[in-house]
Amino acid sequence: MNLVIVGSVALDDVKTPLGEVKNALGGSAVYSSLSAQYFTQAGVVGVVGHDFPENYLQTLAARSIRLEGLEKAPGETFHWAGYYEYDMGSAKTLDTRLNVFAAFDPKIPSAFKSVPYLFLANIDPELQTKVLNQITRPRFTLLDTMNFWIETKREALLAVFPRVDMVVVNDAEARQLAGTPNLLQAARWIRNHGPRGVIIKKGEHGALLFWENEIAALPAFPLDTVRDPTGAGDTFAGGFIGALAGSPDLTMDNFRRAAAMGTIMASFTVEDFSTRRLEGLSEEEIRARYRALQKISELKDFAGDFSSNGR
Amino acid sequence: MNLVIVGSVALDDVKTPLGEVKNALGGSAVYSSLSAQYFTQAGVVGVVGHDFPENYLQTLAARSIRLEGLEKAPGETFHWAGYYEYDMGSAKTLDTRLNVFAAFDPKIPSAFKSVPYLFLANIDPELQTKVLNQITRPRFTLLDTMNFWIETKREALLAVFPRVDMVVVNDAEARQLAGTPNLLQAARWIRNHGPRGVIIKKGEHGALLFWENEIAALPAFPLDTVRDPTGAGDTFAGGFIGALAGSPDLTMDNFRRAAAMGTIMASFTVEDFSTRRLEGLSEEEIRARYRALQKISELKDFAGDFSSNGR
Repeated sequence: MNLVIVGSVALDDVKTPLGEVKNALGGSAVYSSLSAQYFTQAGVVGVVGHDFPENYLQTLAARSIRLEGLEKAPGETFHWAGYYEYDMGSAKTLDTRLNVFAAFDPKIPSAFKSVPYLFLANIDPELQTKVLNQITRPRFTLLDTMNFWIETKREALLAVFPRVDMVVVNDAEARQLAGTPNLLQAARWIRNHGPRGVIIKKGEHGALLFWENEIAALPAFPLDTVRDPTGAGDTFAGGFIGALAGSPDLTMDNFRRAAAMGTIMASFTVEDFSTRRLEGLSEEEIRARYRALQKISELKDFAGDFSSNGR
Repeated sequence: MNLVIVGSVALDDVKTPLGEVKNALGGSAVYSSLSAQYFTQAGVVGVVGHDFPENYLQTLAARSIRLEGLEKAPGETFHWAGYYEYDMGSAKTLDTRLNVFAAFDPKIPSAFKSVPYLFLANIDPELQTKVLNQITRPRFTLLDTMNFWIETKREALLAVFPRVDMVVVNDAEARQLAGTPNLLQAARWIRNHGPRGVIIKKGEHGALLFWENEIAALPAFPLDTVRDPTGAGDTFAGGFIGALAGSPDLTMDNFRRAAAMGTIMASFTVEDFSTRRLEGLSEEEIRARYRALQKISELKDFAGDFSSNGR
């Protein structure tokens, strides 16, 4: 196994202008592992309650996602309810019930302890630290977080930063964390606090990736219909680290390729509710969108004239 | 002469968190012609008042920008005052005095009437129509507009659309015009109303270019200090059509290159107040940023693995 993902496994109620689902399969570890498994074998560490449907476990297991790190605890599964308005811009939360997730204390199975790639999805930074304390430092660790931890556990979060290789946040979180509206300055601030790299997700505007002194800008994959944005960020992160884990080495070119794969995987997720679209993609569908993204981004050498007016 | 630009010539008072200017050189025809002249010879059609400083005219004339279409009318020059807050996001207008611009009735000099490239910068769509009525249809016409005309002169604006080749708007204007939050749908809506192409500017998030059924996505040039965003959109448009006018033909690759040049020119403009930074660039400075933008956008063929987990 090549990749361990620690994060939430959830039942989601989601409503958007294009439909609605209840108790749908969700959570950061779910979206990211379903995305990553197209490129590498992934194992999940998380917790579910007694009410978690058997067929959801089958959905993961059928894709060779290893579940020995998925604890079954007494109580109900983490449950999130939210909706999106007309512009599908950002989720509005109606209800968050942590349930079994409230007492989650990640225990890393011994088979997971020397994994080369680790994704610490968005959970309490104190739990992220507990995970890192149980494993040999992986070749590459990616860390996600959110505004809630930036506001309530800033010190614990900053204490994890030097122990990971790259941080993935959205643009609002990057600005909040670094206290600057400028994303270049924000990325530099984060890198000065430990990680060698930063990814800033910008939703429909794509993503920026910073690795040491290099920058990559990825556009979003253009879609004319978005049905449900839930899980897009987790799918991006899972596709990114999954593609990286399946790459020969950690070069800037491979970071770009992996971020492009994250972009492509997220473009599938948002086309339908929950993990529906993400579950049954073919390699050819994924490759076709990757090539389309290459074409959209392509910029050839300048071939026009410069005038010599007045100079 | 290869390019005619019809738009405003203004005196601007601008305040940002990084400084302030009064009665500075500004206006859409000014920014766009100063940007375009690096690539092609441009002529301006507009109006100034008796108070317009002679040295501002020299700034334009010294770069071989033809001014026989720049009328001098009794009264004061168009004057805009505004400021930007902390995030430099969007201009807040403090005062707009149209002055001589209120009675502007564009008269196209005979030497300008069969020009191959035309930029109708952001003015009343009824005036844009008057311009088109005075000239032979150019090889390529670019049209800019703004929320004010979308709200108050929608019909006149839509009547100009079939007479131009490409429309350039920002993302908010595109959404407002088409009545949809989705930019792909908005671009299609605009193309269904006449123009073969659309550029949607997204500020710090770059630009999307649509030409028939093809799409290009351009990132913004990453800057860690923006001093004054005034004129960025006009500089983009001028750089775009200027580079296009200096290109061998109207292919998708050349549209991409021209949009990248627009992006680069705008990145210089925002680094200082008014047209200061835009006035004295070297060809090598421009080429260096173009190459940097290519590098940032570069996406090589995917070289990683696909797993065969469960498929």
